[in-house]
Amino acid sequence: MTALKNDRFLRALLRQPVDVTPVWMMRQAGRYLPEYRATRARAGSFMDLCKNPELACEVTLQPLDRFPLDAAILFSDILTIPDAMGLGLYFSEGEGPRFERPVRDKAAIDALGVPDPEQDLGYVMDAVRTIRRELQGRVPLIGFSGSPWTLATYMVEGGTTKTFARAKGMMFDRPELMHALLGKLAEAVTGYLNAQVAAGAQALMIFDTWGGTLTPHDYREFSLAYMQRIVAGLTRSAQGRQVPVILFTKGGGQWLELMADTGCDALGLDWTLEIGDARRRVGDRVALQGNLDPCTLYASPEAIRRSVARILASYGDGSGHVFNLGHGIHPEIPPEHAAAMIEAVHELSPPYHVE
Amino acid sequence: MTALKNDRFLRALLRQPVDVTPVWMMRQAGRYLPEYRATRARAGSFMDLCKNPELACEVTLQPLDRFPLDAAILFSDILTIPDAMGLGLYFSEGEGPRFERPVRDKAAIDALGVPDPEQDLGYVMDAVRTIRRELQGRVPLIGFSGSPWTLATYMVEGGTTKTFARAKGMMFDRPELMHALLGKLAEAVTGYLNAQVAAGAQALMIFDTWGGTLTPHDYREFSLAYMQRIVAGLTRSAQGRQVPVILFTKGGGQWLELMADTGCDALGLDWTLEIGDARRRVGDRVALQGNLDPCTLYASPEAIRRSVARILASYGDGSGHVFNLGHGIHPEIPPEHAAAMIEAVHELSPPYHVE
Repeated sequence: MTALKNDRFLRALLRQPVDVTPVWMMRQAGRYLPEYRATRARAGSFMDLCKNPELACEVTLQPLDRFPLDAAILFSDILTIPDAMGLGLYFSEGEGPRFERPVRDKAAIDALGVPDPEQDLGYVMDAVRTIRRELQGRVPLIGFSGSPWTLATYMVEGGTTKTFARAKGMMFDRPELMHALLGKLAEAVTGYLNAQVAAGAQALMIFDTWGGTLTPHDYREFSLAYMQRIVAGLTRSAQGRQVPVILFTKGGGQWLELMADTGCDALGLDWTLEIGDARRRVGDRVALQGNLDPCTLYASPEAIRRSVARILASYGDGSGHVFNLGHGIHPEIPPEHAAAMIEAVHELSPPYHVE
Repeated sequence: MTALKNDRFLRALLRQPVDVTPVWMMRQAGRYLPEYRATRARAGSFMDLCKNPELACEVTLQPLDRFPLDAAILFSDILTIPDAMGLGLYFSEGEGPRFERPVRDKAAIDALGVPDPEQDLGYVMDAVRTIRRELQGRVPLIGFSGSPWTLATYMVEGGTTKTFARAKGMMFDRPELMHALLGKLAEAVTGYLNAQVAAGAQALMIFDTWGGTLTPHDYREFSLAYMQRIVAGLTRSAQGRQVPVILFTKGGGQWLELMADTGCDALGLDWTLEIGDARRRVGDRVALQGNLDPCTLYASPEAIRRSVARILASYGDGSGHVFNLGHGIHPEIPPEHAAAMIEAVHELSPPYHVE
């Protein structure tokens, strides 16, 4: 493989010295970019785009051609694993992801198989290989998965939910069933992420989108425990380099210490806590990724720059910070506003990296 | 007025000794009750129900006739103030509250008047008086308002929002405009809550539903500061009794210390933190209200009882705890499950109140 030309993202995740604070954006390949919308229109459905390695590669690289980002992230969906388990993923207009066959009882959970990544999710591995080839070492490629709890909520509910009625109902009433489901998912996610590393992913991120809807007690038992199991089973180096692992629980700001104890390398932060406070809490155990309120990008470039400056100052001197939004970029954001954020990070951060 | 027969809710909010932990539920008068749905169908629209003091009283009392609750809460909407300011509140099926005339520029904010509670919101004050009369001292009546920030988000967006694009856009780009709007709202909310006390409300609660969507920096400046201003301006006693004030920022678990410093009497907690940890953090400055995950009520009465027991044990010995859900009860909950929660609180809490 080609040598990596810009490794500051990987170095920051491992708290090694860098020249400037690296930056990327969750959902950086997405609807706010006209070139993405054009490819998406050509592809057919959203899943057609995910399942076409050439087109997935194309949209993965689009934001890198436009902005000086320090990392690429595989374009895919968090629900590829349940789809490969046979639940029949589809997207209905305005309702988000849906499953044809939700998983609601013991028989359905017992019937679930753990997918073979190369066989059942080969399109993802092909996309990783294609992207790595096309990246030509410009920046590292991040692989990812949803967390077991997050995947389980969609699988039990049959789609998105505001109330988590069925998923939490199962968790409270039949915890042994929920644990059986989460155990299978942890095994599936571990294999899936390791296959992404084998295919060329250089860092990994676990998106626990719905862990923050749990009580602290239930978070530890039904989400964190399974992420910890995954972290323990991951391939942590490839091609002579460490493969850093980032955990991100949206709404998990109160549980950073617990998350840092899983053995991951970095924590993703949403915007509801000061990154400087987060740094004091986790000490030198993990790097931190975040944490600009994604709504800041609705504002003017001047306001964006002020907010970037505040976060850089809050984190303070030294490495261990990857700049990002606290959640995915919203579809209506003008691309110039994303550019203003990225430029501000690169321009304003060098003073924090003077030896 | 009739003497209060059950004052354990007021006593717990002031951290005075009680025999059992008092309990009520946010949105206890609501769609999960068939009798509510019947009255609602008779009333016409949701706002017709809010604006009819006799029917608002009827639905306020319905949960008390069914369950041994320790408090009543005025049936009303958080958006009555913007409606009285002339924004034209209406509810569209499936889309929640909407305003005919959103507030998006300086001219619109300058044009806003501060409503006179008895003149412009007389239907609310009439409802408070009617409920107090009909309650006959069974339990105390809670008055309430939305927080300035929460009201402002609806007023600027023109309805509910997932992204807060316009409200946060104004906050970041034109903070002076947002402050002008929040200042008027703080004045309006103060007058509105004081009028509720004059009409008979015996405790007050401020619902900061959307404060938790802010960064800590913006929360202090755009939400907390205005709640603090309101708390400082409230009538804190009536008819020879203290009128306790409860602040509730959903998603505000990271900011409890700041909230306790406002001078309020109690904090509402959502379910994302252990109530025992919250108690250690705020010490004896405030009482705590909460914090069962509302989804627990989807589960069986046995599972509900276990979760109630865990929260009571987490809070521990002594007064200062009002049991509640961490958010409003969901519309699909079977009323028997709410009954199981209330019964469990009353049955399991006396050992924590032995001298």
